[in-house]
Amino acid sequence: MGTMNAIEIFDTTLRDGAQGEGISFSVRDKLAVSETLDELGVAWIEAGNPGSNPKDMEFFHLAQGLGLKNAKLCAFGSTRRKGLSPTEDPQVWSLLEAGTETVVIFGKSWELHVTGILRADPRENLAMIAETIGFIRAEGRSVIYDAEHFFDGWQANPDYALETLRTAREAGAGRIVLCDTNGGTFPETIAEGVKAVIKELEVRGDGGNGAGRPARAGASPLPVIGIHAHNDSALAVAASLAAVRAGCGHIQGTLLGFGERCGNTNLAALIPSLELKLKRPCLPPGRLEHLADACRKLAEIANVTIPVNTPYIGACAFSHKAGMHADGILKIRHSFEHIDPALVGNGRRFLMSEVVGRSALAERIRKIEPSVTRDHPVTAILAARLKSLEAEGWAFDGADGSFELLTRRELGLYTPFFKIEAYRVVSEHPAGATIACSHAWIKVFVDGEYEIAAAEGEGPVNALDGALRRALTRFYPELVQVRLSDYKVRVIDGREATAAKVRVLIETTDGQTNWSTVGVSADIIDASRAALVDSIEYKLIQDRGRKIAGI
Amino acid sequence: MGTMNAIEIFDTTLRDGAQGEGISFSVRDKLAVSETLDELGVAWIEAGNPGSNPKDMEFFHLAQGLGLKNAKLCAFGSTRRKGLSPTEDPQVWSLLEAGTETVVIFGKSWELHVTGILRADPRENLAMIAETIGFIRAEGRSVIYDAEHFFDGWQANPDYALETLRTAREAGAGRIVLCDTNGGTFPETIAEGVKAVIKELEVRGDGGNGAGRPARAGASPLPVIGIHAHNDSALAVAASLAAVRAGCGHIQGTLLGFGERCGNTNLAALIPSLELKLKRPCLPPGRLEHLADACRKLAEIANVTIPVNTPYIGACAFSHKAGMHADGILKIRHSFEHIDPALVGNGRRFLMSEVVGRSALAERIRKIEPSVTRDHPVTAILAARLKSLEAEGWAFDGADGSFELLTRRELGLYTPFFKIEAYRVVSEHPAGATIACSHAWIKVFVDGEYEIAAAEGEGPVNALDGALRRALTRFYPELVQVRLSDYKVRVIDGREATAAKVRVLIETTDGQTNWSTVGVSADIIDASRAALVDSIEYKLIQDRGRKIAGI
Repeated sequence: MGTMNAIEIFDTTLRDGAQGEGISFSVRDKLAVSETLDELGVAWIEAGNPGSNPKDMEFFHLAQGLGLKNAKLCAFGSTRRKGLSPTEDPQVWSLLEAGTETVVIFGKSWELHVTGILRADPRENLAMIAETIGFIRAEGRSVIYDAEHFFDGWQANPDYALETLRTAREAGAGRIVLCDTNGGTFPETIAEGVKAVIKELEVRGDGGNGAGRPARAGASPLPVIGIHAHNDSALAVAASLAAVRAGCGHIQGTLLGFGERCGNTNLAALIPSLELKLKRPCLPPGRLEHLADACRKLAEIANVTIPVNTPYIGACAFSHKAGMHADGILKIRHSFEHIDPALVGNGRRFLMSEVVGRSALAERIRKIEPSVTRDHPVTAILAARLKSLEAEGWAFDGADGSFELLTRRELGLYTPFFKIEAYRVVSEHPAGATIACSHAWIKVFVDGEYEIAAAEGEGPVNALDGALRRALTRFYPELVQVRLSDYKVRVIDGREATAAKVRVLIETTDGQTNWSTVGVSADIIDASRAALVDSIEYKLIQDRGRKIAGI
Repeated sequence: MGTMNAIEIFDTTLRDGAQGEGISFSVRDKLAVSETLDELGVAWIEAGNPGSNPKDMEFFHLAQGLGLKNAKLCAFGSTRRKGLSPTEDPQVWSLLEAGTETVVIFGKSWELHVTGILRADPRENLAMIAETIGFIRAEGRSVIYDAEHFFDGWQANPDYALETLRTAREAGAGRIVLCDTNGGTFPETIAEGVKAVIKELEVRGDGGNGAGRPARAGASPLPVIGIHAHNDSALAVAASLAAVRAGCGHIQGTLLGFGERCGNTNLAALIPSLELKLKRPCLPPGRLEHLADACRKLAEIANVTIPVNTPYIGACAFSHKAGMHADGILKIRHSFEHIDPALVGNGRRFLMSEVVGRSALAERIRKIEPSVTRDHPVTAILAARLKSLEAEGWAFDGADGSFELLTRRELGLYTPFFKIEAYRVVSEHPAGATIACSHAWIKVFVDGEYEIAAAEGEGPVNALDGALRRALTRFYPELVQVRLSDYKVRVIDGREATAAKVRVLIETTDGQTNWSTVGVSADIIDASRAALVDSIEYKLIQDRGRKIAGI
């Protein structure tokens, strides 16, 4: 097949992804998502619909300061409204005002939608496409044209559906994206549709699919054909692969598959297949191995859990139970693995296998104490301890700080820097007050001395955190630089409702490094207390532990 | 295409599905799962590996009393161990002892596995296949032969891989199932492999794929060719469809996609495509519309939550959040839906959020007040209110109860049943105590009267909930039946850490119906208070509101 062309990856987590239930991004979230996607190396980020959402316009203005290295941001909107000229349509102006070099315009390809939903004449729809793209182009912007419901439209009335694409292409769209908006089309039909489009554009003498192919001298640039699939039939990844094989050079999706109904094409589940199996580069060299990391960052910002069975990047994607599979892998790595997990930044895990589990655990302990082997007694003790803590709802995968403290305790490598003697947190709404308030009182014991401190806060945990920090600063002045950077609560067993256990995950920073800790309790305040204590202990051990070692 | 043949559905939730992390079935669970699958109408249930699991043997003995109507149970095991005869291998005997009419035998097709993992001679492996199947057949049972790693083996050494199948077929296997054990094979390759197998068996003059095709008079029965895929590349459903199109008549998978690593073929996501789109019957007539129900039952037994974005049967599979989409559906149902959700027992939902359109909003409001139209002023007011509340962090797409209260307030259709005058919640760890504790005090105002109550709880929210309920029960005795069934916390902007806003979602039940409410605040106690108040108000308006209307 020779050298294969690169595929453009277009991520719409911030636009189509935000249509998913439970997905909602603040402006700051959107900035963080953009940086994460840019770092991973996607080509395009569709970041919002400025005409329908004021939050999105604010984002586009702030995003101009981001300095993205790989990705181009685009604003998304529709063709002009029927009966208006583009200059009369505020939605079209908002797309220019967003200030992106590229604008995504979607329009109708399915005649049913033109006559039945827009209630417009099919000719008027063509004028809406031509005039909107023409106007945006005349203002000096590039246009990606999204042909909504292309495959349904093409099956119902192929001539009209293809006519809408010719119109977009002639008006100057540089990319024409075929959308399976309802997600019901099979990969075979997707491939036929893509081929029909490429043939149609070639028939008209303007070149066809231009994914990476140079335009002939003097000809207008060739449009790249793209695919935008949805997962309503569990076929979005297959449809996108079929489209690439049929000639598409541009794929729209969302990194974790967020999106309305059953979601958009899951890019994390697709990109490794394209790069590793079809040898079509999607990301800059060396970035694929950061895929799992980028997914975890995105999940954290969106505050969702990545399903453990997500292909390639899920926590179980390379998990093996004991016995035959684990045994097979130890003999021949690829006997039970379709790819090496390290290629996508994931890892192999062996479940319920004492022997192999211990080797992996020992490997982790050696980061703290290099002399520990798989047969060291502490490895067995820690394995048992982890098992019983996890049964109680603890999880150390996202809490390296707490895991290190747990390990040091078992190794006898540490004594606590302080002890909380007592605390009291009050949240109240007094009669006659207009808002609720919280305050906390705490008593700590450090090196034979007591200290008491109190603080107010926005909510009980904030108050407790403030009081704890105040009480300790006299002994450990370096804690002044320490502050929480993230705080997450997860109810472990929802069925017992407010008496269920909660797991609190805290991320802390001292401006130079970040660390994460965990606490579990039926009482959210008590769980937070546990995570806060670990967070401070971890900081002190890093600083003071090092000092002692240096004496 | 004429009358299309039926497809045999083979569910392995109880065998391969139980390899999934977090999936574990007791013997009673297994009986309940079998009944659920039989009721749905699958053809085969692979229920366990009696040779490796004593629990499975107990199940098979108890299952003989189930009286299944549609499904046949099978026991699963491997070819005999190298160096033993089948009669010397206790694992082979255990398959007979399980007492099923059909036995599934898996064997090796990939030479690498034979020589590198089993460390057996390739000829010995053929003997293992032939002798094991021959022995089971001689004992009067039918055999389904699972060709493990068939597609990897066929690509590496097609002659040997096909030789293993010929061996199984000649030994009397009635079904030959091609397994993509590592889940890495693309649908195109799956289809090529299936075609090669069918051609190979035809070349040998014994008929090829027999899915529904009659055997020639005097010939031995033709084997049915099956497919067993895994989802490691997000392609299991696509691979199974490609296999059916290439001639397979038997599909193995798990109803909810349970299985090791990324799971097996998700049958709930596949069967509707086969029945509704390819017109290939999989279940007895009339059963497809019970698919969503069967999935919910299975999820309950397995104690897992069905991902909301699961194709066809997930809670969001037919949810619409974008205004345009909801608007389109109200005009033409199939404009934004690939199938009618009722065909699989699911339903359509419009999610209430800032991106919802006025038409969908008006439709939702009409459930409360039938006279409201899209152009009624309250629709515009409520749309604006939703937008500003969402900007503050509220989200109503998972909180129908709070949305209804919000709407009633705007419509002037309700006055609160009570008011919280003041409350105080204390969480503390007193000096010398071994555990933390929480207690709450609350003062409510109802119809000109005050009431004060206090309660202890596991955590501050549990305490506040208890106190509120106690204070109100004197006025509204029906609240005794009300209890929380789920409680979720989401930190809206994690970067401001413990001072960030939190969104609390509560689900409440009175034993007959469930409803959900939401609260947002920087203070988790205050956010919980808001959601608790809505939850109780919603209950009272449902009961008492109806009474007033009935006067």
